[in-house]
Amino acid sequence: MSDLFSALATAGVEPVVDADVIAAHSVDQARLVEPGRAAALVRAADAATVSAVLGVASEYGTPVVTQGARTGLAGSATAVDGAILLDVSPMNQIVSIDPVNRIAVCEPGVLNADISRAAAEHGLRYSPDPGSWQISTIGGNIATAAGGMCCVKYGVTAEYVLGLEVVLASGEVMRCGRQTAKGVAGYDLTRLMCGSEGTLGVITEATLKLSPIPAERLTLAAVFDTTAAAGNAVTAIMAAGCQPSLLELIDNVHLRALEALRPQGLPTDAAALLLVCADSNPVAELTEIERLCTESGAAEVFRATDETEADALLESRRNAYHAMERLGTVLVDDVAVPRSRLAEALDGVAAAAERHGVVIGVIAHAGDGNLHPNIVVHPEDESSVAAGRAAFDEILEMALAMGGTITGEHGVGMLKRDWLAREMDPVNLAVQRRIKHAFDPLGILNPGKVLAV
Amino acid sequence: MSDLFSALATAGVEPVVDADVIAAHSVDQARLVEPGRAAALVRAADAATVSAVLGVASEYGTPVVTQGARTGLAGSATAVDGAILLDVSPMNQIVSIDPVNRIAVCEPGVLNADISRAAAEHGLRYSPDPGSWQISTIGGNIATAAGGMCCVKYGVTAEYVLGLEVVLASGEVMRCGRQTAKGVAGYDLTRLMCGSEGTLGVITEATLKLSPIPAERLTLAAVFDTTAAAGNAVTAIMAAGCQPSLLELIDNVHLRALEALRPQGLPTDAAALLLVCADSNPVAELTEIERLCTESGAAEVFRATDETEADALLESRRNAYHAMERLGTVLVDDVAVPRSRLAEALDGVAAAAERHGVVIGVIAHAGDGNLHPNIVVHPEDESSVAAGRAAFDEILEMALAMGGTITGEHGVGMLKRDWLAREMDPVNLAVQRRIKHAFDPLGILNPGKVLAV
Repeated sequence: MSDLFSALATAGVEPVVDADVIAAHSVDQARLVEPGRAAALVRAADAATVSAVLGVASEYGTPVVTQGARTGLAGSATAVDGAILLDVSPMNQIVSIDPVNRIAVCEPGVLNADISRAAAEHGLRYSPDPGSWQISTIGGNIATAAGGMCCVKYGVTAEYVLGLEVVLASGEVMRCGRQTAKGVAGYDLTRLMCGSEGTLGVITEATLKLSPIPAERLTLAAVFDTTAAAGNAVTAIMAAGCQPSLLELIDNVHLRALEALRPQGLPTDAAALLLVCADSNPVAELTEIERLCTESGAAEVFRATDETEADALLESRRNAYHAMERLGTVLVDDVAVPRSRLAEALDGVAAAAERHGVVIGVIAHAGDGNLHPNIVVHPEDESSVAAGRAAFDEILEMALAMGGTITGEHGVGMLKRDWLAREMDPVNLAVQRRIKHAFDPLGILNPGKVLAV
Repeated sequence: MSDLFSALATAGVEPVVDADVIAAHSVDQARLVEPGRAAALVRAADAATVSAVLGVASEYGTPVVTQGARTGLAGSATAVDGAILLDVSPMNQIVSIDPVNRIAVCEPGVLNADISRAAAEHGLRYSPDPGSWQISTIGGNIATAAGGMCCVKYGVTAEYVLGLEVVLASGEVMRCGRQTAKGVAGYDLTRLMCGSEGTLGVITEATLKLSPIPAERLTLAAVFDTTAAAGNAVTAIMAAGCQPSLLELIDNVHLRALEALRPQGLPTDAAALLLVCADSNPVAELTEIERLCTESGAAEVFRATDETEADALLESRRNAYHAMERLGTVLVDDVAVPRSRLAEALDGVAAAAERHGVVIGVIAHAGDGNLHPNIVVHPEDESSVAAGRAAFDEILEMALAMGGTITGEHGVGMLKRDWLAREMDPVNLAVQRRIKHAFDPLGILNPGKVLAV
């Protein structure tokens, strides 16, 4: 170990070794994932430092766990034994915004929301908007392929990443992708890096696609007495060819938790609330969506009268997870099912909650069929944790049985690595391992994440 | 060789060995790429046949060149010496259309346009629309990551491919991707296959994302006396935050070729014609675009009075390449530059044409900065071919110098494989080779395409 530190010092890298600091940096937001004991923390302010760390790590066979804001929900940034925790959040500069070519070049530690704030001066935004957008970094967003509420109309993070600078396990610096709107030269290494969770390389710069801010956005909320009716409304909206720019579901458990957090007049008796935005020809679009909600059995549909009311509704959605945290420790699940099976999936989650005697609330990117069953457990009570984990697993099982996936947008990390083999066929998994080996033959990059060691 | 044929026969595969048929199947639309001598042609009607062929090819170290409609423009489907040409166009069934989940499942030999025709019954379409969409197959579209006119607003082919079934070099069948709107489990092998041009595996089924057909589309044409003014108009339109659903440029050479093909009143004196469509709030959008064209110096701007006139204009754009073919053999180039440098790129192409004494017309997906300089050569005149090739190379050089790419949407194939190393840094290229090796350790899949052997 002292050899490792000498080698880092020789390479000009000064690690933090304070045990408390390292402990604080050893976890992300995946509550029940047990971290390993890291050896050191390096705060990297430039790609040269990242490269130096990886060069030394390669020489000593030391694991490297790359971290940003550690807001991830799958344990991708959780410490492993003997690792260097490589915090790239100090690389937090927006390098450039080019409004004509609609691209932003950023270091990995820039906060998602800061990119949109900088782009807004040019009438542009960075579309992907994970729930954590105010506090999560773009590097982490890309590494986990984080989703968000925009996806139902505007697609996923990977579609907004044009190019990357990546430091490989060897310490070599690679550029991939492009600065142009289109380009197909060679294998798409940029997309391969998206969602690779620090297991293939360390992102040190990103070239991002910006988009015009829609001129107008209108918002409605629809109240449902049954989740089945809410699910059917979602199906009807999408089947009718509507293109909501946001289509979110908040269930009764979350509505009550939100009201408990801060009373704001949410319908705590409702089984589910749908929030819908439209931003292309929104008056006509919302009229149609309103009609479909009513036809599907909505008890009440109301439009936000102004932006302030609309923002308050969306803020409720964003706060839903934090409201739940007041009830206990929240085990966040993240499955996606074909959107036609949303109602069925909601029933399945309710059944799992009842069977295992745990509280589970669901918020969902409903238009995408992407559910977040938030399972409340009490870590001081082992049986509660065991029940929560059992429900968690059962929900993953259900999603796979419905032709869905174990992760819609949070990633695999440590939390679901054993589940990856249940989603992927063995041939696919073998190819994934060969790709991992092609990038990281020594296996030093975030070992045990995504793929089991 | 006879061993190979016995092994194929044992595997239940009956190859075509007729020399004329094989010769006819040995080229795609990359005119000046010299094909090798293939050993046999197999027409595969199912994945089992593809698997059998690859199993035998692995055993005998035989190259396999996968083919669809052979409409590619980079020589990805061109024969190599001793190869089995694996024609998957008989796999031409649409397996399913699911309007609620907005997905289509197709075999690789289905024509692009047939998917949209089938989806139209549900008010949906498959957005990516390469110029060849009426005659090219979805498998080839995915394998080459083919672009089109929709990209300026709706993005590229890779964004519409949710999942794939792929037969690997070993003959094993792999499934990757998902059926859900979102999903981030494991490395994104689906995206990696997009644009891999048959060098990593053979696509035998694709799950595609469908989108609602826009309710309304309006079209305008703007006539410019200088290409600089046309280029500036494009820059102005994109900088203003407009979102045209199509933004194409046809230059004077093409306008004259089109009129020669079929007189239709195109402005043959103009330096360039811009075609613009808008499909979200289109009246307001086109009014703004009209204003920006006029401000940028358009000599004339007119709106298509109805769908028939609009379709005729777009059909001209689609026919531009074929009109040029009447002037000689067309060497099709395909570069993308930052869209802010479009006018400069047009000047550069004109200078190359003059310097080398060749006719070059340009059509461009202008909103994306993606230019197709179509170079007319006369194969019977060696000096004409040499001059055309020199101009071709100079244009690639120019695109790279502008921060652009050697291929916006046609791919690398054989045509540009030596150029890939000039676009990519050596670290990137080394990773690409390791990925190729991870998929195809024996190097039997389309050798010499994308990456030089």
